[in-house]
Amino acid sequence: MKKFINTPDTVVADALRGMAVAYPQLSIDVEKRLVVRGDAPVAGKVGILSGGGAGHEPLHAGYVGFGMLDAACPGEIFTSPPPLQVLEATRRINAGAGVLHIVKNYTGDVLNFEMAADMARAEGIEVAAILVTDDVAVSDSLYTAGRRGVGATVLVEKICGAAAERRWPLDKVAALGNRVIRNARSMGIALTSCTVPAAGRPTFAIGEDEIEVGIGMHGEPGRYRQGIAPASELARILLDTILDDMPLAAGEPVLVFVNGMGATPLMELYIMLEELSKLISARGLVLDRTFTGSYMTALDMAGCSVTLLHLDEEMREFWDAPVSTPGLTKGTV
Amino acid sequence: MKKFINTPDTVVADALRGMAVAYPQLSIDVEKRLVVRGDAPVAGKVGILSGGGAGHEPLHAGYVGFGMLDAACPGEIFTSPPPLQVLEATRRINAGAGVLHIVKNYTGDVLNFEMAADMARAEGIEVAAILVTDDVAVSDSLYTAGRRGVGATVLVEKICGAAAERRWPLDKVAALGNRVIRNARSMGIALTSCTVPAAGRPTFAIGEDEIEVGIGMHGEPGRYRQGIAPASELARILLDTILDDMPLAAGEPVLVFVNGMGATPLMELYIMLEELSKLISARGLVLDRTFTGSYMTALDMAGCSVTLLHLDEEMREFWDAPVSTPGLTKGTV
Repeated sequence: MKKFINTPDTVVADALRGMAVAYPQLSIDVEKRLVVRGDAPVAGKVGILSGGGAGHEPLHAGYVGFGMLDAACPGEIFTSPPPLQVLEATRRINAGAGVLHIVKNYTGDVLNFEMAADMARAEGIEVAAILVTDDVAVSDSLYTAGRRGVGATVLVEKICGAAAERRWPLDKVAALGNRVIRNARSMGIALTSCTVPAAGRPTFAIGEDEIEVGIGMHGEPGRYRQGIAPASELARILLDTILDDMPLAAGEPVLVFVNGMGATPLMELYIMLEELSKLISARGLVLDRTFTGSYMTALDMAGCSVTLLHLDEEMREFWDAPVSTPGLTKGTV
Repeated sequence: MKKFINTPDTVVADALRGMAVAYPQLSIDVEKRLVVRGDAPVAGKVGILSGGGAGHEPLHAGYVGFGMLDAACPGEIFTSPPPLQVLEATRRINAGAGVLHIVKNYTGDVLNFEMAADMARAEGIEVAAILVTDDVAVSDSLYTAGRRGVGATVLVEKICGAAAERRWPLDKVAALGNRVIRNARSMGIALTSCTVPAAGRPTFAIGEDEIEVGIGMHGEPGRYRQGIAPASELARILLDTILDDMPLAAGEPVLVFVNGMGATPLMELYIMLEELSKLISARGLVLDRTFTGSYMTALDMAGCSVTLLHLDEEMREFWDAPVSTPGLTKGTV
């Protein structure tokens, strides 16, 4: 294993120390594994919290800041954060307007966030939780009952973050988040495995010309394997699978998110976007917004995922709203 | 070779088509391989142009926009753009205040940009050129006479771009760029090779536990090979090599740029930043600004480079100035 690390045991703490050097505007508690907006709690604002196993950077810690998350609580690599860590993050961002937990559907995350929410409520903090379940690849997996939460998480964090910044109340922010989740689907392809530092070797073996279709973001199995194919064909497989699950009428506006899994060059993501764009037009859909980059990764995995979000006016408005975080910045804050 | 491409021949054109879908605010001419600000030429402003072989994305095309480049002219992968392409880009961004060519020191780039500059001058366009030569690893290489231009290129583009946005005249922008170049040094380490699509196999072979110190950004050889070592030790090697070449007195302010080569997870870059930060403090230097991410890549190479810039007031001011491009956005435009 070749990585820029000191020891596998200290990877998350060392990376958080580096983030603290890079982003002094964030309040980073390395011991408690909390990444919090420096100005939290923000008066009158619903606090937006997400978290989960580390190894998916910039998700989630990189999305803490104006217009997105108030805090993130990273666990160990690919490991859920314990309930007390989630509770502490919830406390730190509660300004009295309540806290939204954005939870990816992995068994550990679901249990730990639920326990933390119960404890926070016992302290008088209003908590709502939404469960991201956008991965159409598999019904259940090594890590989940039900569909996994993948790329749509970034869209949910952005859109709910913008609504909270606009001082929407907790129930409305949660309802908006659930609407995004209902209208988003994702599907991914892995070209290579990732290597978890503590394991020291690739999570799975895959042939020189073989790809895994429907991959998860921890290297868990997808739907099937096949040979490598042209980008045009891979784009078709991903889009067809998504639209089979979420049929859309001609003329409907969509946001397409082409996400790199960590080791895939930006050029290749643009090539996928171009192919998807042609297919989306051929279906009569309106490619209303695009989002391309490595925003939710699986360590050093080569691969990509595609997320399609069926947009409405409110989602579009909040997607376009200003945001200022280490991992995503746009517009005038 | 497993990549999200259609055919090796169409990689650059397909990726530019994807960029055009993603960034309608840019004017992208796929046939002529030009990426130009939609509002170019900008009245009264020096035009800032860079270019070179593709495969280093987001460099350069991703830095076209307010506060950075007016245009980029990508060649084929790791191949210089021909003079007529550079000339056409120069024409399109000349608003009468002249054009600055930011050229990385590779033999093909230098020749082609010089020819283009001569042709542009013959048409009455004022052109100044600056040569980026920040790589301390080697004196000459497969691709260069003299030092290669690497990470400092991004800093030069940002700082000169901001000065041009402030309507500085051409000679002053060029002088500022040369000052940045004189005060910047870089050094990199590769963990793996990259794979050029047209070649179809890794550029070089490297052992399972072996790293290449002083690597170039095309997979050309560096200084030596050694075994993998902890991040703290690798950071020390990179920083020592840089500071041996550019000794700085205690108390001097520096910007440190930790750059991923394409396949290196963000977590590992933060770990390197943390180690560099400790070493920089131990040397008595002031870590004044940091910049961390995969901003100048070598396709799918795993590795990182470190660039140290000895800051002065003007450089800091222009570094902090607003910028809005696909690859780098900050501040209020």
